[in-house]
Amino acid sequence: MTYELYYWTGIQGRGEYVRLALEAAAAPYRDVAREEGDGVIAAVGKQVATPSFAPPFLKDGTLVVGQVAAILLYLGDKLDLAPKDERLRLWTHQIQLTIADFVLEAHDVHHPIGAGQYYEDQKPESLRRAKEFREERVPKFLGWFETILEKNPEGPAHLVGDRLTYADLSIFQAMSGLTYAFPKLMNRLGPNYGKVNAVCADVAELPNIAAYLASERRIAPNENDLFRHYPELDA
Amino acid sequence: MTYELYYWTGIQGRGEYVRLALEAAAAPYRDVAREEGDGVIAAVGKQVATPSFAPPFLKDGTLVVGQVAAILLYLGDKLDLAPKDERLRLWTHQIQLTIADFVLEAHDVHHPIGAGQYYEDQKPESLRRAKEFREERVPKFLGWFETILEKNPEGPAHLVGDRLTYADLSIFQAMSGLTYAFPKLMNRLGPNYGKVNAVCADVAELPNIAAYLASERRIAPNENDLFRHYPELDA
Repeated sequence: MTYELYYWTGIQGRGEYVRLALEAAAAPYRDVAREEGDGVIAAVGKQVATPSFAPPFLKDGTLVVGQVAAILLYLGDKLDLAPKDERLRLWTHQIQLTIADFVLEAHDVHHPIGAGQYYEDQKPESLRRAKEFREERVPKFLGWFETILEKNPEGPAHLVGDRLTYADLSIFQAMSGLTYAFPKLMNRLGPNYGKVNAVCADVAELPNIAAYLASERRIAPNENDLFRHYPELDA
Repeated sequence: MTYELYYWTGIQGRGEYVRLALEAAAAPYRDVAREEGDGVIAAVGKQVATPSFAPPFLKDGTLVVGQVAAILLYLGDKLDLAPKDERLRLWTHQIQLTIADFVLEAHDVHHPIGAGQYYEDQKPESLRRAKEFREERVPKFLGWFETILEKNPEGPAHLVGDRLTYADLSIFQAMSGLTYAFPKLMNRLGPNYGKVNAVCADVAELPNIAAYLASERRIAPNENDLFRHYPELDA
């Protein structure tokens, strides 16, 4: 069965967390809006019994599921990217939800007043929010990821257990975005989080992921995306 | 087994979504910080192998789970507040995640520059963000909840299937907060969402929930909570 991913063209965005899972597992999938245009997202969304509030959503036959964490909860089982053990499966999901919170905060740095207005219309506010993000939130989130790697009874090679899960793929994506958006900050803070960095480096070298990152399917980061490089917000 | 909920005293907050599930099911639980003080949250958090990034978290014997949506995913099965059918179980979770997004946006209205600064230090920014929230976001979210109730093949009495789930409890809590924080807005817009209102009214009349809401365990909404009534942000 070919999975169908519905997400905006032109950015990595939240769709990328789903793409990485599909690519890591070499699962057959269509990135439907890239073939048919963004209009297909609303068109298909209207037809289904379980419409998503926003993209991405995934179709697997007659199942339609939205919200990145819920999609990954589903795909984790299907693609063997989550532990079978019920407690570890739940822990993987909890980590994913925390990554999602982190990514949303990274987005809100450049849109503190609301997603409906341009960055250029909320620059002074973004400067203020960026300061708290850099000084308080990034260290708090990255410190937490480092801590749970230290606490993993199976060792720090993976966020959960001793095998790759979608949480590893997602922390790679979040760190990739963070490094793009805040190069100065990450140059300074990054070395404090050696275990997080090691997980991300390992993910980038997975053969399926390395091939994906080198392909045209991987869109370059840009200033329409969740993570944006505005030099004035970095320090 | 007595569940142990760890969450800040003095507010409903995110802990309330967990409390409502426990109360609806008449599950035995301790609200630990209310007995022992807020310090117990950090103390217990440090001891466990799966520490939460932030409260609430729930202990069930040796299991410790954080993130509201993950807690409810777990409790939904244990307390029979989620469908057995795998697809509907996932759909219930997807709705919960969307409610969580909505609640976070409602919080960020009064903290657009960051949770680390007082509302009084970000009032002009809050006024701007509140306008977009009232005019764009609230109608979009409430419209989505109304739509999925209309689309429920089992009828609009519940968000999922034909029985109570944690999603019904959570939409009740979100609407309760919204009505407290934005009475003028909800007086004007509320009547447009008759099916959502009906679900919330039914939840409030469930015997276990009615008893809880009338008890001292239900803390009154206040201006330390996620939903805050600042008249200048309402319109």
